[in-house]
Amino acid sequence: MKTINIKELAGELKLSVSTISKALHDSYEISEETKQRVLETASRLNYIPNPYASSLRGRKSKNIALVIPEVADSFFSLAINGIESVAKENGYHVLICLTHESFNNEKTILKEFQCGRVDGVLMSISRETTQGDHIRDLISNGVPLIFFDRVFEDVETTQITTDDFESSYKATEHLLQKGCTKIAFLSISKSLSISNKRLEGYLKALADHNVSPDEENIIECTNDAKQNYQITKKLLGQKNRPNGIIASVEKLTSPVYQVCSELKIKIPNDLKVICFSNLDTAAILNPSLTTITQPAFEMGKTAASLLFKSLKKSKSNLTKECIVIPSILIERDSTRK
Amino acid sequence: MKTINIKELAGELKLSVSTISKALHDSYEISEETKQRVLETASRLNYIPNPYASSLRGRKSKNIALVIPEVADSFFSLAINGIESVAKENGYHVLICLTHESFNNEKTILKEFQCGRVDGVLMSISRETTQGDHIRDLISNGVPLIFFDRVFEDVETTQITTDDFESSYKATEHLLQKGCTKIAFLSISKSLSISNKRLEGYLKALADHNVSPDEENIIECTNDAKQNYQITKKLLGQKNRPNGIIASVEKLTSPVYQVCSELKIKIPNDLKVICFSNLDTAAILNPSLTTITQPAFEMGKTAASLLFKSLKKSKSNLTKECIVIPSILIERDSTRK
Repeated sequence: MKTINIKELAGELKLSVSTISKALHDSYEISEETKQRVLETASRLNYIPNPYASSLRGRKSKNIALVIPEVADSFFSLAINGIESVAKENGYHVLICLTHESFNNEKTILKEFQCGRVDGVLMSISRETTQGDHIRDLISNGVPLIFFDRVFEDVETTQITTDDFESSYKATEHLLQKGCTKIAFLSISKSLSISNKRLEGYLKALADHNVSPDEENIIECTNDAKQNYQITKKLLGQKNRPNGIIASVEKLTSPVYQVCSELKIKIPNDLKVICFSNLDTAAILNPSLTTITQPAFEMGKTAASLLFKSLKKSKSNLTKECIVIPSILIERDSTRK
Repeated sequence: MKTINIKELAGELKLSVSTISKALHDSYEISEETKQRVLETASRLNYIPNPYASSLRGRKSKNIALVIPEVADSFFSLAINGIESVAKENGYHVLICLTHESFNNEKTILKEFQCGRVDGVLMSISRETTQGDHIRDLISNGVPLIFFDRVFEDVETTQITTDDFESSYKATEHLLQKGCTKIAFLSISKSLSISNKRLEGYLKALADHNVSPDEENIIECTNDAKQNYQITKKLLGQKNRPNGIIASVEKLTSPVYQVCSELKIKIPNDLKVICFSNLDTAAILNPSLTTITQPAFEMGKTAASLLFKSLKKSKSNLTKECIVIPSILIERDSTRK
């Protein structure tokens, strides 16, 4: 169906654009009769208001942004569904921006948002991010921002996380109970909040069970699939290789399984594996994968709900509040005794 | 860093807003000296132009929309990465809108776009979509739209697809060559272009090999994981069950593997399975999964490139052009003889 703009609507009614605008905004200057005529004609001729004109007046873009490293990870794809479900209820669109784990991309994206393109931001920082000026700049320019999953601790705002320390502690304890004596921890960053908390949980569990940690078993992986394969191959190709692995991100599952298959390392007999993962296929892997499964949908939904609550106030009121939604350990064959 | 608006910039320079605006747009009415002063001060005080004001002038939102059914599917998450890579080069953001396979959601989303929120749209239709007025309305309102993967045939615009007919033909032939005599085809829609082409490829391969098709082996699944599990259980619980399955979408892999495990049906001995899937974990499933792997990243990249090419013209010039990027069959253990 064809649409018309305000000028055409004014022409049709032989009224000024200003009168039409006032009528559509229910101004006391316009008679009820004229308002009715304007509304009836606007509806009949499919008049659609220009959102940018509305934005200039009301300072609302009706977009929120979601800034995340990637979507090829089931945690983020599930979180997006949670965020989308809340945005839709609030009549908002979600503008998804991917940093591809790059700090520079992240800075460029947030800089763009300073000028009103979005009303609020939900964010999970890149693995390279070690300073937060770009985030503080955005917030000080009046754009509320909430972290979910990967937070930047030194920025004063609400964070939705899962219990990374506790789940990693549980994962490590699980492997110890299953008889592992040498447990490797695969990380993807030395600076990310989630990586550090997961590493701390691992170290604390080892300490509580009187196992001394070994620097060589704490492995930093990358964002590149081929490199991760090489790193894993080096780790598992050693004579004195680990007999347990905690993979702190989902994408490290494939290289571990592939290298084991190539080197004829049997999971779980020779090596027990547990992974932070929301993969739908965890249960049908060979062998089925024990996972720490995160409340991805719930985390996205909670983050979005709090952002919209804040957007409804005249001034953002987000304080440094930490909301923690627990993950669960799902035991499968990859850690069988 | 604090930013300033055009009014504050004008105040600082003791010039009118209109002079500043003309200077920033390099108008011939303004002297070179004034232009230089304005630019220097704008840069120093971190002036950021309001994108909505720019949008009103230039009719550009600098957003493109991506309308897809979901992101929890590796095809779409890879396609998004391809689209994002091109959008970034062009200084655009991608606004991702999920239909969750609902025709009504799809209509609401496209209706919103009629009023200039986005400059162009890339779209993969929902499984419920059987008519295209909402799409034609958007295009006739001057918003160019390109289909990728799931196209609506009756709309005159460019389509980027993969060779669904040929890949499905090859998949069926592959199962026949491996000794399957009774091949089931799992679809998710009776109306989707991709589902129909895949079904046609399956039927043609059967016919070419003198196998009569059986209506009971053509199964329509849904968008609900639990229902798909029940449908698969019914199919494989029969006495005269199939010995080959073609799953035409990725999400049908899990129910097939789960039901087989429960009913003690051995893949590939009792049942051979091939799936249209870009799953990273296909190679490490139990057993590893033979796939038709789609050129997801390339399809997204091509669709976005053509959209930006069109956006650079003063009037959209998208004709009914079909670009087909072939998929590949990757043979693994799930179809071993």
